[in-house]
Amino acid sequence: MIKAGIIGATGYAGQELVRILLQHREAEIIWYGSKSYIDKKYYEVFQNMFQLVDADCMADNMEELADRADVIFTATPQGFCASLINEKILSKVRVIDLSADFRIKNVNTYEEWYGIEHRSPDFIEEAVYGLCEINRERIRKARLVANPGCYPTCSILSVYPLLKEGILEPDSIIIDAKSGTSGGGRSAKVNNLYCEVNENIKAYGVAKHRHTPEIEEQLSYAARENIYLNFTPHLVPMNRGILVTCYSNLLKEVTYEEVKAIYDKYYKNEYFIRVLDKGICPETRWVEGSNFVDVNFVIDKRTNRIIIMGAMDNLIKGAAGQAVQNMNLLFDLKETEGLQAVPMFP
Amino acid sequence: MIKAGIIGATGYAGQELVRILLQHREAEIIWYGSKSYIDKKYYEVFQNMFQLVDADCMADNMEELADRADVIFTATPQGFCASLINEKILSKVRVIDLSADFRIKNVNTYEEWYGIEHRSPDFIEEAVYGLCEINRERIRKARLVANPGCYPTCSILSVYPLLKEGILEPDSIIIDAKSGTSGGGRSAKVNNLYCEVNENIKAYGVAKHRHTPEIEEQLSYAARENIYLNFTPHLVPMNRGILVTCYSNLLKEVTYEEVKAIYDKYYKNEYFIRVLDKGICPETRWVEGSNFVDVNFVIDKRTNRIIIMGAMDNLIKGAAGQAVQNMNLLFDLKETEGLQAVPMFP
Amino acid sequence: MIKAGIIGATGYAGQELVRILLQHREAEIIWYGSKSYIDKKYYEVFQNMFQLVDADCMADNMEELADRADVIFTATPQGFCASLINEKILSKVRVIDLSADFRIKNVNTYEEWYGIEHRSPDFIEEAVYGLCEINRERIRKARLVANPGCYPTCSILSVYPLLKEGILEPDSIIIDAKSGTSGGGRSAKVNNLYCEVNENIKAYGVAKHRHTPEIEEQLSYAARENIYLNFTPHLVPMNRGILVTCYSNLLKEVTYEEVKAIYDKYYKNEYFIRVLDKGICPETRWVEGSNFVDVNFVIDKRTNRIIIMGAMDNLIKGAAGQAVQNMNLLFDLKETEGLQAVPMFP
Amino acid sequence: MIKAGIIGATGYAGQELVRILLQHREAEIIWYGSKSYIDKKYYEVFQNMFQLVDADCMADNMEELADRADVIFTATPQGFCASLINEKILSKVRVIDLSADFRIKNVNTYEEWYGIEHRSPDFIEEAVYGLCEINRERIRKARLVANPGCYPTCSILSVYPLLKEGILEPDSIIIDAKSGTSGGGRSAKVNNLYCEVNENIKAYGVAKHRHTPEIEEQLSYAARENIYLNFTPHLVPMNRGILVTCYSNLLKEVTYEEVKAIYDKYYKNEYFIRVLDKGICPETRWVEGSNFVDVNFVIDKRTNRIIIMGAMDNLIKGAAGQAVQNMNLLFDLKETEGLQAVPMFP
Repeated sequence: MIKAGIIGATGYAGQELVRILLQHREAEIIWYGSKSYIDKKYYEVFQNMFQLVDADCMADNMEELADRADVIFTATPQGFCASLINEKILSKVRVIDLSADFRIKNVNTYEEWYGIEHRSPDFIEEAVYGLCEINRERIRKARLVANPGCYPTCSILSVYPLLKEGILEPDSIIIDAKSGTSGGGRSAKVNNLYCEVNENIKAYGVAKHRHTPEIEEQLSYAARENIYLNFTPHLVPMNRGILVTCYSNLLKEVTYEEVKAIYDKYYKNEYFIRVLDKGICPETRWVEGSNFVDVNFVIDKRTNRIIIMGAMDNLIKGAAGQAVQNMNLLFDLKETEGLQAVPMFP
Repeated sequence: MIKAGIIGATGYAGQELVRILLQHREAEIIWYGSKSYIDKKYYEVFQNMFQLVDADCMADNMEELADRADVIFTATPQGFCASLINEKILSKVRVIDLSADFRIKNVNTYEEWYGIEHRSPDFIEEAVYGLCEINRERIRKARLVANPGCYPTCSILSVYPLLKEGILEPDSIIIDAKSGTSGGGRSAKVNNLYCEVNENIKAYGVAKHRHTPEIEEQLSYAARENIYLNFTPHLVPMNRGILVTCYSNLLKEVTYEEVKAIYDKYYKNEYFIRVLDKGICPETRWVEGSNFVDVNFVIDKRTNRIIIMGAMDNLIKGAAGQAVQNMNLLFDLKETEGLQAVPMFP
Repeated sequence: MIKAGIIGATGYAGQELVRILLQHREAEIIWYGSKSYIDKKYYEVFQNMFQLVDADCMADNMEELADRADVIFTATPQGFCASLINEKILSKVRVIDLSADFRIKNVNTYEEWYGIEHRSPDFIEEAVYGLCEINRERIRKARLVANPGCYPTCSILSVYPLLKEGILEPDSIIIDAKSGTSGGGRSAKVNNLYCEVNENIKAYGVAKHRHTPEIEEQLSYAARENIYLNFTPHLVPMNRGILVTCYSNLLKEVTYEEVKAIYDKYYKNEYFIRVLDKGICPETRWVEGSNFVDVNFVIDKRTNRIIIMGAMDNLIKGAAGQAVQNMNLLFDLKETEGLQAVPMFP
Repeated sequence: MIKAGIIGATGYAGQELVRILLQHREAEIIWYGSKSYIDKKYYEVFQNMFQLVDADCMADNMEELADRADVIFTATPQGFCASLINEKILSKVRVIDLSADFRIKNVNTYEEWYGIEHRSPDFIEEAVYGLCEINRERIRKARLVANPGCYPTCSILSVYPLLKEGILEPDSIIIDAKSGTSGGGRSAKVNNLYCEVNENIKAYGVAKHRHTPEIEEQLSYAARENIYLNFTPHLVPMNRGILVTCYSNLLKEVTYEEVKAIYDKYYKNEYFIRVLDKGICPETRWVEGSNFVDVNFVIDKRTNRIIIMGAMDNLIKGAAGQAVQNMNLLFDLKETEGLQAVPMFP
């Protein structure tokens, strides 16, 4: 049994990690870290865990955890993991960081978009960007995995194959994204109150959302040139789910079948990526509760553009599920272990 | 592997049955019955099943199914199962009926409340009311299981121990119930449209809802006298979940500890019934996606009443989950097999 | 023009008061009080007011307001109004208090249920309980109006006529209430976050909600004896609306027509109370955005009980609308002025 | 008093028209047309109208209405108005058609996108596109007004000034739109059921939605060249509201102030268009219940694009409110009469 410690177990992503790991046959949770609820029963914070988890919440002690655990998940605010990580810890334990600290290779870009100083830039180079379908082999050997952001996971997986195969005009990409409210976290803010979110839709972080450089960096690898794009997230009155609607000019005339063949080339054997039948648009309800990403596209000959859509559960493939998928890779387990839940509808 | 056939696989309860059975290690689905979608791919009706189910929807042929399956689930409108069941079928296959056809022992009561003639009253006596926690041993030996209604499951399990132990005034019981909208089924009716249900709460079927006699019959067994009660369901703008708030006069002065001891006597070893800590009210969000029923109570000394609350997922413990629990009992499997999903929040 | 000052203008009830008064032809707002947002533009707190309100938020200065306003509305936490009110203020200005400070005549009851000391008990006797349909004449002459609570307004108006006419068994009353989330206020609490409220229903404050003694007091006047009842509020995932479902034993056999005649006797000429057609259940969607209370009932001969239902918009008839109705009475305006908005659906 | 007849009064837009006209001081409704509910009380279809409307629903008799009414509103499916309109009717009565029949000047384009034959193409030329802020003077003199579609209203008003002033690259425009569910109408379809829409977001009609050519035509007038663009609508789990997020390449370097000046030039005196303060994104909650369109923009220097956002209530400015605004213009009333409701929040 793999011993897993979670730092930040009482946020939405942390709780989802607990839920998934409780149903994982090869891992057990040995540490429910939570700065805010120390010594409180974990199930008192999340009553769904009543009679399933008896443990107390514990302090965020990474040093001690490194001695006791095989893997540490940090589901913590930006800057936390970078402020604690060191060679000694990484020599003892694998770390999967769900924050943005090690996702961006250029430390200046990180500091500029996140507005904080990076406390351990030396480990950025080593960290592997944990987008399993793209970096699988490098992840297997990693000590430190930078678990991708929710929007980036959905955006990159949707666009990557077409960009890599050179049919998209690189500087024409626009990603209009929509997310459920759990993406905003569990802290008490007026803006996240029920009555503020319900019966409303809005864009936020327009032209300055922090996931922009993360998406750009990964897509730049695909395009083999620097990509700058527009990324606009929107807040949707629902708990879970991300939908991205991506627009790009086409570099050449392509048929449905040609584009479909590209997706098949990359994703045919990927269990968690489902390229839908022709004409079917991805919808978040069909992936909720699962680790799937549903992808599809429409070619618009009138404008010579392609519209690419991707849908996933932001807390699973966009956070905790992908973190467990990374853990499975790190420990040579079946990649789908603990992650085969059928999407729950309605 | 137990071969399961589902008649009515394209309603909400039917689809939930599919979802649960796909994750059951000892059963496989051999028949996705659906009158409305014959020959259509099952996943085209429910895209969450894309790449998970390849089968087509098939006609409702109970005779043929009886030859091929070990168990038939009927998730069909009232009257359907009763119109087809016969000795020959029951001699070959176990039947778990999710409709109301065999729940009520008095055929006149059934015909009066449901407004239809019962087509096979001869099997009513034999049918076992499939409330697992209460009729476990009789279910094991049944050929025909009447899977309880959603409201009755939650209501009966909440009230049963106290009534059986004689602390409730039998003719004082009032059950005010609230349900998510999936309980209303998947047929296209104006009243179930998004804009009609959203931002609204209403009572319906006041003093005449069909689940009333079902609850009364089972509680009458507990009380060993005829019970008449008020049951008022309400429609809540959410997908899943039932909450019952039950009121009863107390026959004698009791303490919290005494009442808690009664619940423990009945439910201490019941995995799926969680009697919450003192002061914690059941909430549907904490059981969503699971087979749990969360129960608790408050004694009001000012009025000499007890308020009992129960929460569960109407599609799982209130329908498909309980049906699978019944199947597990029928085939001597571990009772929790396929049903150990941790509640999903948020 | 009546000059109105609002203390607590940046809560949900305060904002609703602003919205209604902006559409009132005989009143103007001269003071947008808000402790939290002093010197901020009011429209920056509520962008719906952009280009409609240019004023800044101002401090809670009741003394100054008394000199400048004709009426002060206090939409503030419990204890605030009681801590500031005095003879000098009341000699200059009418006060409509939307908090609970002056609703309950017995100061001990108030202090026990609210857990705070009452700071100006001398004014309790003088204050008039502002339930317009019942206390209309006394309100006209009041200096200090205690605007009723949301649950009490809906509960009392639903039950009052039948209790007054002696057909209900006084100690058998149970009120099961359901409210939208705006009733919980606009302060940042984890429990009111979107993801905590959405897809959930729960009871809260069971057997100890503060609106209980308020309802009991008013209904005791109707019954001419002390009433103790059960009141259980529930939180519903919607913005606005309260539905109460009330249960009572009947003291004698009554017909639909007899009960209907009682309601007509009391409410036939009440514009804001609509007794629905036979068989139609009140629903919150049909009153949203209006000052209406929709009422109806069902007699259950099987149990000899009556089920009474009432629906209203908690922020209007349950708070700001009723406050304006009280203002209209105080200043001899048409009682419906500013309050004739047709309910908005969907 | 202007006598108004409504054909199609029992859809969501028709009901909204009723609601607005009931609060209009210069108009009265003389005909509640509804094919589906003939002879039923109007309030039985919409209980919010109980005690406010006593009329019965009546057949769709345009000839008779032409004799009795001053203005006819047709809130009916595509093709209906075109099939009945004629010179005799237009000689007697003004017609405001809320369907798409007379919005598109090129009859071939109409027939291609709508898939039906146009039954009275002779009146297309005469019909005036009823986007009040742009065609005000022509509307005043019209006999037949083509009330704009919901998405086009919001899209065109957001983009029009910048396109007209030549700062947008005409063939680079992408409109990603999000709408509440009332836009889908009140007919009973599985896809619009509560459980199908709730907790979900999806795109639909990708690259083929019928509002595309309507937007293109109007924007082509602004650009003085043919515009082809991408328009992608999404269904959001909320009742009301449309948000458009528009992307365009900039033809030249512009500052915030320059773009703001353009909007001011066009909209400074437009009561119903609110260009928000710098940095504030339009949100549907702030316009719900009103005839406002909130607009704002962000310039992204990194990509040389501008992101323009617009929000409005799809049933008001996007349908019934704009229809009444058109009526006000036709009859020389104050343009805002009946339309000054303050947005209702929450």
